[in-house]
Amino acid sequence: MGKKKVKVSASDAREVLLVREGFQLADIDPDSTPGLEGDNGDVKEVGRELFTERDEELADLQERMYAQARAGNPDAPSLLVVLQGMDASGKGGVVRHVFGSVDPQGLQITSFKAPTKEELAHDFLWRVEPHAPKPGFIGVFDRSHYEDVLIQRVREFAPPEEIERRYGAIVDFEQRLVASGTRVLKFMLHVGPEEQAERLLERIDRDDKHWKYNTGDLDERALWGEYAEAYQIALERTSTEDAPWWVIPANKKWYARLAVKAVLLRTLRDMNLEWPEVELDQDAERERLEEPTRLLKESLKRAADR
Amino acid sequence: MGKKKVKVSASDAREVLLVREGFQLADIDPDSTPGLEGDNGDVKEVGRELFTERDEELADLQERMYAQARAGNPDAPSLLVVLQGMDASGKGGVVRHVFGSVDPQGLQITSFKAPTKEELAHDFLWRVEPHAPKPGFIGVFDRSHYEDVLIQRVREFAPPEEIERRYGAIVDFEQRLVASGTRVLKFMLHVGPEEQAERLLERIDRDDKHWKYNTGDLDERALWGEYAEAYQIALERTSTEDAPWWVIPANKKWYARLAVKAVLLRTLRDMNLEWPEVELDQDAERERLEEPTRLLKESLKRAADR
Repeated sequence: MGKKKVKVSASDAREVLLVREGFQLADIDPDSTPGLEGDNGDVKEVGRELFTERDEELADLQERMYAQARAGNPDAPSLLVVLQGMDASGKGGVVRHVFGSVDPQGLQITSFKAPTKEELAHDFLWRVEPHAPKPGFIGVFDRSHYEDVLIQRVREFAPPEEIERRYGAIVDFEQRLVASGTRVLKFMLHVGPEEQAERLLERIDRDDKHWKYNTGDLDERALWGEYAEAYQIALERTSTEDAPWWVIPANKKWYARLAVKAVLLRTLRDMNLEWPEVELDQDAERERLEEPTRLLKESLKRAADR
Repeated sequence: MGKKKVKVSASDAREVLLVREGFQLADIDPDSTPGLEGDNGDVKEVGRELFTERDEELADLQERMYAQARAGNPDAPSLLVVLQGMDASGKGGVVRHVFGSVDPQGLQITSFKAPTKEELAHDFLWRVEPHAPKPGFIGVFDRSHYEDVLIQRVREFAPPEEIERRYGAIVDFEQRLVASGTRVLKFMLHVGPEEQAERLLERIDRDDKHWKYNTGDLDERALWGEYAEAYQIALERTSTEDAPWWVIPANKKWYARLAVKAVLLRTLRDMNLEWPEVELDQDAERERLEEPTRLLKESLKRAADR
């Protein structure tokens, strides 16, 4: 195999893809692979290698966070990952492949569908709050409270002043989460309309993909421009220092997964997660482990005698 | 590498390890590896190869089950896996390694701790029922309602007649689950007292394992014989055709994980899971996909004009 010509930029995906002041969604090319430059095939191959390279570290960091909570540390942190994007933008694939590499015991995955009648009767955050991750857990929202300023805005399911109110309510809600020890990471998977058409066509064509297809998807697709506007506004209004948005070019599935994983890993690293301090007199416990061995034998004898 | 001398028995792990009429826990050697015979090192190596061999099939079957539910099939099945065993018997490792290889979106993992005051004020199944897996999901119980006839019996937390009542209540509960479309698989990870001592010692010795150590574990260990009896009775009374128990020799972690995975895979295979039938006029949808492309362009134009 020849030498691969790929420039892996040393810069942090967190910086490159972050939604800052002046951000324009229209400037982002869904085909691009920021941070990885070179020939198409080579870039993909390097990306695949990078994807699994840090799995052990990721699993270790997640376990430390989980251990903090299990050991009863009242300040045990947690992490919330919000995933948004048009239909077929690859949200499910991110959950499966990025979060599939950490211990499922530490995950809380919530998939938000169209609200029920009961949910609609409450404030839009009512159904969201109970799914905030428990201490030590990584919570993943596949769609989220952002639907309430995206489809609800585009479809005019709520009046403009209510939509307006929601941006502030979301910022407040996320700040509360952060104040209680939850890191909040938000990702928009930015797919282009041509790529979406190909993916939807695959769902129509393949028997094993039909269940992912919804005839309504095409109605939303027809409002692409309106959705782009709704996303632009939501990103502007709710990307805060505490709870930032990253826009991830998502026409290449491998890249979107790699980028989300990179931000996740960097965030966990920055949290300086230690193994919890547990009060334990090791010598005394080792001795006690000997003592019960005697008790255990008596117990086995009792059982045998019965 | 020389030829490995391992006999992989063609028989089904479901048959070999099943708790049947006349089963005696005392007959099971926690060190054994039923179905895999040969030199120790070779057996382990073969076991490791077998472990990942069918991952793709397992993931595919799980996705079909999930797809059934997502497509709205009212008879979509689900699966409940109950894991029991003494402390450090490897329950967490089974969750992580066996269920870590399926899509986390289709998993519902519940870890049952000592009951709270509120939970104790209700019937013992009150806290369990809400965690029964949703259609399409694999539910995993790390400890379960069986604690109510194990620790509660050994420690006499409930009077004998109440413990007696519970065996029947458990059988009824599990039959209800089965009747509503949930397959129920129950595994006891059978570790020996010497192996447990080694694992507990490791938790005492290693800083990164302290959080898993509970000084109370040694008190339960001292009642090994009583626990063995309580397990024997629970297995006898609750291993039914609908909701069978398997006792898994668990001194070798790799074997226990392999055996659970083998039973899981065989069960999913037997469920004859198909991709859901979805009513879809493919030609019409393909046409509609073209039509919205026109609408989409108009939408983009509207957005650009604003």
